[in-house]
Order: sequence, then structure tokens, then C-alpha cells
Amino acid sequence: MENIIEEARLDKSTFTFLESGNMEKLNQTKNRSAVLTSAELAAVVSIEAELLKGARQYFDAHGFTEVIVPHITRITGSCENIDTLFGLDYFGEEAYLVQTGQLYLEALIPSLGNVFCIGPSFRAEPAADARHLAEFSLVEFEFPGGFDELLVHIENTVHSMIQRAVHYRKHELQFLGVDVNSLRKISLPFRRVTYAEAIGLLNENGVSVEWGDDLKSSHEALIVQDGIPTFITHYPEEIKFFNMKRNENNPKVVNSSDLILPNSGEAVGSAEREWNHEILREKLLKSEMYKKLKARGKDIRDFEWYLDLIRENPVQHSGCGIGLNRITQFVLGTKDIRATTAYPLNSESLL
Amino acid sequence: MENIIEEARLDKSTFTFLESGNMEKLNQTKNRSAVLTSAELAAVVSIEAELLKGARQYFDAHGFTEVIVPHITRITGSCENIDTLFGLDYFGEEAYLVQTGQLYLEALIPSLGNVFCIGPSFRAEPAADARHLAEFSLVEFEFPGGFDELLVHIENTVHSMIQRAVHYRKHELQFLGVDVNSLRKISLPFRRVTYAEAIGLLNENGVSVEWGDDLKSSHEALIVQDGIPTFITHYPEEIKFFNMKRNENNPKVVNSSDLILPNSGEAVGSAEREWNHEILREKLLKSEMYKKLKARGKDIRDFEWYLDLIRENPVQHSGCGIGLNRITQFVLGTKDIRATTAYPLNSESLL
Repeated sequence: MENIIEEARLDKSTFTFLESGNMEKLNQTKNRSAVLTSAELAAVVSIEAELLKGARQYFDAHGFTEVIVPHITRITGSCENIDTLFGLDYFGEEAYLVQTGQLYLEALIPSLGNVFCIGPSFRAEPAADARHLAEFSLVEFEFPGGFDELLVHIENTVHSMIQRAVHYRKHELQFLGVDVNSLRKISLPFRRVTYAEAIGLLNENGVSVEWGDDLKSSHEALIVQDGIPTFITHYPEEIKFFNMKRNENNPKVVNSSDLILPNSGEAVGSAEREWNHEILREKLLKSEMYKKLKARGKDIRDFEWYLDLIRENPVQHSGCGIGLNRITQFVLGTKDIRATTAYPLNSESLL
Repeated sequence: MENIIEEARLDKSTFTFLESGNMEKLNQTKNRSAVLTSAELAAVVSIEAELLKGARQYFDAHGFTEVIVPHITRITGSCENIDTLFGLDYFGEEAYLVQTGQLYLEALIPSLGNVFCIGPSFRAEPAADARHLAEFSLVEFEFPGGFDELLVHIENTVHSMIQRAVHYRKHELQFLGVDVNSLRKISLPFRRVTYAEAIGLLNENGVSVEWGDDLKSSHEALIVQDGIPTFITHYPEEIKFFNMKRNENNPKVVNSSDLILPNSGEAVGSAEREWNHEILREKLLKSEMYKKLKARGKDIRDFEWYLDLIRENPVQHSGCGIGLNRITQFVLGTKDIRATTAYPLNSESLL
């Protein structure tokens, strides 16, 4: 029987013998089934799977426990971008498809320490284009620790993902026309610039952007035009998620960091989390997100379980969300997110 | 920095020093946040994570590639139990939360060989009790091969999961009162009885059940009352999923197999899949599921992409869905599925 199983094993050398593939055909979502059995799609799926293994390998080696978070939630799972909620009727209650497992992970830090989850995240983005998906895979981790350690965990996780793909899926990458050597040379630590420095850099390049503005993808592309992965740290508090911790030296900014990658833009969002209950409550109440919630007739009650847990277990902690498809985009060197997975979901691809 | 990360690592020996825990408190779903930071919940989450690692370890060793399947689908992702669909408005289209990634995995077998996915599966089951969850974790794999090999893959995967938990989470299991030695002694192969034999066994035990009836959980409990994991194979075609392959010697039954475990009941559903396009189409059209779909105003069009792929790539293949929470139930020795995960979702637990 062992032999039978052996024979069924995927022959990993298949891609050695193939001519170069055409990744562009994977940008199509209107008739996805036409490309499902293509060698290009098989190569992409193999690379995506290897990237996931690279993340898990890092998590295993650093004591992170996997947590299954809920995917139908009240507002605590869907407050990342409440303008793009998928709502549904949940036994007579209004519920939403999850956007982030962050708060559910944070709740378990006091008893479990380092935790992570990997699963779908949903955005009701109606565009069917190169930059938007209605569902994407999010790799999230949270741990008891501070900002410097956070950046090291992120860059090591991303590095582990990329190097694992380079090592085990070289043939697939070459088949798709990827310059494997340049991926192999990506070194740590990644570059770090503050948001304020980024604004300065953009102004020097003739871009009209002011302190307080959110950065657009065209801005991010300028920052990484030399091909180097770059953390943009310390964003203004107003434009970031409510529970990011204020910087001690400059209370106008938070201890946040977005990792920007060539081709894909923001691939990781992260921050040290606020763990002082009173400050957290105050930050929630004055956040833009909360104002929008109130306009929808909601109030703070949905957040009480989370606020209570933080009050009862005040622990310094930090975490992030890694957009798997953005990492895949960077590795494949494509500007089209639809080419990064077997079943990219947008408004024209429902299957 | 490496030291800082080291210190943040979860101290796995914590559970060695604790008195025995009370798993029953984890049955509560009405006020879940009250138990989120308990040592019992931490132990269960650690065990659940280890079970997942055991499955992945087997998949890695046997050439299975992980695939990200969609979680918002048309009917091909939600035809497992169309009486319990979660519907939602998808940019003006009627869509559903996924129940099974099976057909999306099957579509990739021609190019990728062995494939698997792990993720949420949804059922709009309104009950808040010991046996139902509205969302649960499903481990699914498909491969190019037949029925005998299927059963070997399943029992090896389940065995790998259990032994991994026994090996790495002994303290957590003991803390929860689990007899680790009896888990360690579970041996391969698992027992195999046919559906017809199971009916006979039940009749001998005074249970009134006839050939053609579906087995209830009380029937399954009787079959495994001696504690031995048991495959029940070759069910009548009428009561099983439309694409299960008819048995060559007895066309009234299909090459299906349900794995029954003590405490949890049916933990795995599996079958060799029909890969003759004409027979597959005929089986779909006469299935109970399709009749219900027609009554809802649907027709065969939603299945055409899948039927086309099978016609263009006729490959013998088989696969299964492993209910993670059912495996955890068995390992923990609990009759309550709510105790198997951090965030069990039912009609009273939305968070």
C-alpha cells in the first residue's frame, strides 16, 4: 500500500521540462475554469502553498500556537474597514463575514502567549481589477511583546516564506519567468523609514502629500522603487486602527508599521496594541470607525467583551496581518493580484 | 533580539504544575469570553493546533499540495446540505458560505495530483447544543487514486493527528483528564464494516433499522461502543452525495466510507468520486439534492464548470472531509463539541 501512495505523489520535477509559462492568462477571473488545469496555475498554487509552509515553519520554531478564529462575527471581527462589510442574517441577528481575527487572537495572549491564525478575510469591494479581491488569505499573529520585536518577527516570517519558496519551488518560479537569484538575495533587516521621513522623501520627489494624509499605492511604489522591502513606521494616529498604541515620545503617531513590497504595495499591517483599558476605550470612542458605527445605529456594547478582557489582563502585546496574496505578488513579480491564487474572488468570478 | 523572542516563547511545561482542569466549563457558549483565558481553554487550543500539525505532517510527507478554496460560492461549494445554507448578497447575486471545498479541490487534481485544504465550513443549524456548530473546521483532501488507497490515507492522517497530540501535548491532555495511554494504543488499520454488516449488527442488538435508512448518531455509537475507530463502507447510493462512485459489483451502493469515532460519531466522510462524465451528470440530475435545488428555481447551469472539467480530464480520484472538531472530541473524550475549540459558533455565541 505504501507503494501505491508513493506513486500518487506529485512529481515535483514536472516543471523542469516545461517551456516558460504565460502568467498573464491567470489574470482572468471571468471564466476562471478555463485556466484551472493550466501548468501556470499549478505552479502558482505550489508556490502559494510553499509560502504558507515558510510562515508556519517560522511560527513553529518560535512557539506560536495556531488558533481557529470565527469567520462569522459581530463588529469586533469586521471593524477593519466597515465600508466594505459583507453582512448576513445569522439566525435573525445581523452578522458579518470576518475581516480580521486580530481581537480574537489578542484575547488568548494572556493564556497562550504567541498565537497565530491563517484564513480568509472578506471585503465587499465591487471592483474586478488587478488590485482588489473580495476574499483573500490573511496570516495574522499576536504576541506578548513590543514594537522592536514585532518588526523582527514580521521580517523573519516574510523572509522565511520567500526563502522557502525559492528553495523548494525554484522550477515553478523559473517556469513563470521569476528571477530566483534576486529573491534569494533579499536580506535582513528590511529597510525602515518613518511615516514623516516617507512624506519628506515623497515631497523631494515632487509628490504633493502632507503630514496626516494616508499614503496611496502610487506613493508606496515610489518608496520601494529600488526593489527593497521597506517598513513605513509611526503613522498619524487618526488614520490608523483604533487600538494601535500611541508613541511615548510623540503622541501624534502610533507604534505602527506597514511593510511595503515592490509590485504589491502594503503587504503587512502591524502595530503594538494599546493595553491600558482606559486609553483604549477613549481611543475607540473617538475613532473614525466608531463614528461610522454610531451612524449605523451601533454602539460600544459589541466591544465590551474585548475591552473587559484587556482590563482584566493588561499585557503588553503586538501583532500584524500579512496579506498572503501580496507576498505572492511580490514573489511572482506581478502587478495583478488575480494571478496569485487558484480561485481569486471578485465580483465577476463567483464559482 | 533572538533572546527577546526566546523569552516570549510559550512555556510548554506550564501544564505540568496545574491541578486537573474542568473541561465542562468549556461547554458554555452563551458567555464565551468568561472562559477565554482559562487554562482549560488554553489546553484545548494547544491540542487542536497539534492535531492540525499532525494532519499537515502527513500531507507534507505524501506530496499533498495545499490549495486555498473560496469561502463564498455558488451552489458547487454549498451542495453538501442545502437545507442549512447561509445565504448572502454578493454584489447583487445570491451566494452562499462554503460547506465543502471538495469540487474546487477535485478540479485541480489533473494538474496538481494530491491536494488538500483546511478551513471553515458553515451550516445554518439553529440549535445551540452539544452536537451542532454553525461553523467548524474541515480538513479535506483529494487525490488521483481509488477506494483502498483512500481508506489508508484517511486512517494514516487521523492516526498522525492523534499521535502528534499525544506526543507533544501529553501534559495538556492529562490536565484535561484524558487517558493518554489508551490514545497511544490506537492501532492501524482501523476496523472496516460495510453498511450492510452494520445494519445486521444493529438488528442483532435489537435496533429497528432497515437497509436504505441513514444511520443515526445513536446507531453509530453502538457500532463503536468498544472504543475502536470504525469505517462504515458502501452506503446505499440514494442517501449519499451525488458524485460518489457506484460500486462495480453492487450498483446499489457507492464506494463511500464514513469513519465513526467513539464520543464524536461520524468524523470523516469520504468516497471514490465518479469520473465518467455521463454517469456523473445522470447521478446529479436524479439526486435528492438536485430535486431540492430545482424546487428553489435553480438548475444544472451552476454545475457546468465542474462537469466540463471532469469531461475534459477523466481521472480516477477519491477524497474526504475530516471534521477537526470531531477528532478533537474523540481525543478529549467529550460528548460536547462546544468544548473542542476557542470560539465555537452557534446561534447563541456570536462574538
